[in-house]
Amino acid sequence: MGAGHTRFGVLEAGPRTLLRTAVDGAFASLDHGGGRNELGEAFLATLGFGGWQIGNSAAVLLEEATSVGLPTTRVENACASGGFALRAGVRAVERGDVDLVLVAGLEKMTDVGSARRRYWLGVSGDTEWERLAGLTFAGVYGLIASEYVARYPRAREALAEVASKNHENGTRNPNAHFQKLVSREAVLEAPRVADPLGLYDCCPVSDGAAALLLAPADRAHRYTDTPVFVDGLGASSDRLAVQERPELTRFEATRSAGRQAFRDAGIESSRVNFLEVHDCFTIAELLALEDLGFVEPGGAVDLTLSGATRATGRLPVNPDGGLKSKGHPIGATGVSQAYEIFLQLRAEAGARQVAGAEVALAHNVGGAGATAAVSIFSRG
Amino acid sequence: MGAGHTRFGVLEAGPRTLLRTAVDGAFASLDHGGGRNELGEAFLATLGFGGWQIGNSAAVLLEEATSVGLPTTRVENACASGGFALRAGVRAVERGDVDLVLVAGLEKMTDVGSARRRYWLGVSGDTEWERLAGLTFAGVYGLIASEYVARYPRAREALAEVASKNHENGTRNPNAHFQKLVSREAVLEAPRVADPLGLYDCCPVSDGAAALLLAPADRAHRYTDTPVFVDGLGASSDRLAVQERPELTRFEATRSAGRQAFRDAGIESSRVNFLEVHDCFTIAELLALEDLGFVEPGGAVDLTLSGATRATGRLPVNPDGGLKSKGHPIGATGVSQAYEIFLQLRAEAGARQVAGAEVALAHNVGGAGATAAVSIFSRG
Repeated sequence: MGAGHTRFGVLEAGPRTLLRTAVDGAFASLDHGGGRNELGEAFLATLGFGGWQIGNSAAVLLEEATSVGLPTTRVENACASGGFALRAGVRAVERGDVDLVLVAGLEKMTDVGSARRRYWLGVSGDTEWERLAGLTFAGVYGLIASEYVARYPRAREALAEVASKNHENGTRNPNAHFQKLVSREAVLEAPRVADPLGLYDCCPVSDGAAALLLAPADRAHRYTDTPVFVDGLGASSDRLAVQERPELTRFEATRSAGRQAFRDAGIESSRVNFLEVHDCFTIAELLALEDLGFVEPGGAVDLTLSGATRATGRLPVNPDGGLKSKGHPIGATGVSQAYEIFLQLRAEAGARQVAGAEVALAHNVGGAGATAAVSIFSRG
Repeated sequence: MGAGHTRFGVLEAGPRTLLRTAVDGAFASLDHGGGRNELGEAFLATLGFGGWQIGNSAAVLLEEATSVGLPTTRVENACASGGFALRAGVRAVERGDVDLVLVAGLEKMTDVGSARRRYWLGVSGDTEWERLAGLTFAGVYGLIASEYVARYPRAREALAEVASKNHENGTRNPNAHFQKLVSREAVLEAPRVADPLGLYDCCPVSDGAAALLLAPADRAHRYTDTPVFVDGLGASSDRLAVQERPELTRFEATRSAGRQAFRDAGIESSRVNFLEVHDCFTIAELLALEDLGFVEPGGAVDLTLSGATRATGRLPVNPDGGLKSKGHPIGATGVSQAYEIFLQLRAEAGARQVAGAEVALAHNVGGAGATAAVSIFSRG
């Protein structure tokens, strides 16, 4: 596997430049150089691109990769687009008839006005019962957080710890949108966005791209001396509208995708050294830890407040800063999670290196849990 | 393979109803009933859905299929979305770890105003050099047709024959948007849209959905006594902007996808009994015949004027009326082509049955040839 990444944030670069930068970075990461001529297929994860190439954008990816003339497919599952594109890319290399598959994720969100951006995002949630009733994603996650906070003591404090921890992790990631410390107190005192969630409980609107190069496992050593392997994949779905689900504080799509991924990888969750989870709002990180089976329902509060999920804890979560601090350019996010895992498992993560990282899990959610993809990686 | 289809046209039904109707039809087509509980994965092809679920729409498909909780992925490659979703679905069943895969295509185009629709469509072509310069898809195909007509005698007459033939075929398809005869003279005398193309050289704006159920070849007989097999797949891409290509009257993506599909199926083009090609404009049908290797460049004129591509000719093209007469609900089109082939190869096409149909080819194009998917089917 090779991997490239742009800075995340409010960027001057347009979507083509972002794609090219990420793809060039992925090729540059191949230890033995080359690879351009061995590309056999491509997948692009994006929701709105930059507003000017909403359809057929997979063809743009190949123009920027200077590989026009290959099969190329845009995969879109809202914020889980990247995780599903990764899955599609892995399936393509598993066939064994191509040497390299490119998986890229992109969003250029700050080029378009906030009304259109709200439309892009809104049309990824349920329309009939949520969007048209005025319920935004912050509102949906606010409802979920309300229920969670009412149910478990110290939950609000744990949410603040998620934000504070991920902001601290972001200070060690030069690609992160935010690279500043935010204290738990600052999180708790921030203006409300959707009660109980405040400003620092929400991820930002970011531009950015990430790219991966995947090879069949038996050919990985042709491209690198330190391959990273995808050992397990899981993907699932749920009803779009949260009101139609039996439980607000549980994402069945994550649970099902997680079970599949562990079964596929043939390992128990205790083998995982660190996680990249979809913390679009702080509450989402707590739910992920529970839905992925690392703790029982409600157990994420104590786990988080114990410091276990910090960069130096026993189960670091979002060492790159997560969506919260690194940023969340929709289509890029699932690919960016795999990029971080690529660096960590190769011991190339610099100041944020997780000690002894051998097995990692990525968890990417679309909408408020209507789609979810989980992937398990190892350094082989 | 099972297959379902809604009426195409200006429909009252919304996108959810269209999806449900097509999916129910696909399950109903399974000769031995059942199948719902054996569904393992789903793919949805759509460009703009109905304007209210542009992101995460693959989750809606599973709600309407009453199969929430499975992996589901939206595939979008503009007008070739359906062909690429079919390819993704075939790849999924080839793995052999699921029994049935659902591939659906949908577009609800008439629900949104023409400005937004123009935006949806426009953002599937090149933006920088075409859309922002005012060049629409009709304009691009008009440029291509101008060059073609200047180069080959009687080409304008052949274009009129394509329209007239496909309208005649549409009169025998109860699902077609248009079911009326249009003479060659009427085509030639129609108001110009983009010289030399007139009103009847252009496909309409339609609502509609289609769905397929795919099973691993070794399990097909569990579901049907008359299976249809996908023998070959090809997919490719090209530069978005036609000005960046060496030839206007040749689609490299079609050529490359066609070669792959024939190689994959292990057959020569002479084995194909009839074609479903992407006739978004009449010129596109002529180019397809040439790019797929059925005739040399320019040869589609004589072939078409000879009557060979009529329903009763030696190589019927678009027996269902094609995009021209059946309609072109963007995401549904590639899936609809496979539906027609399903009926024809099972000898269930009624008044439009192609005699002795054993092998058929589907050709689906995104944008003005920036993406293309080709599939070859047989009745086994």
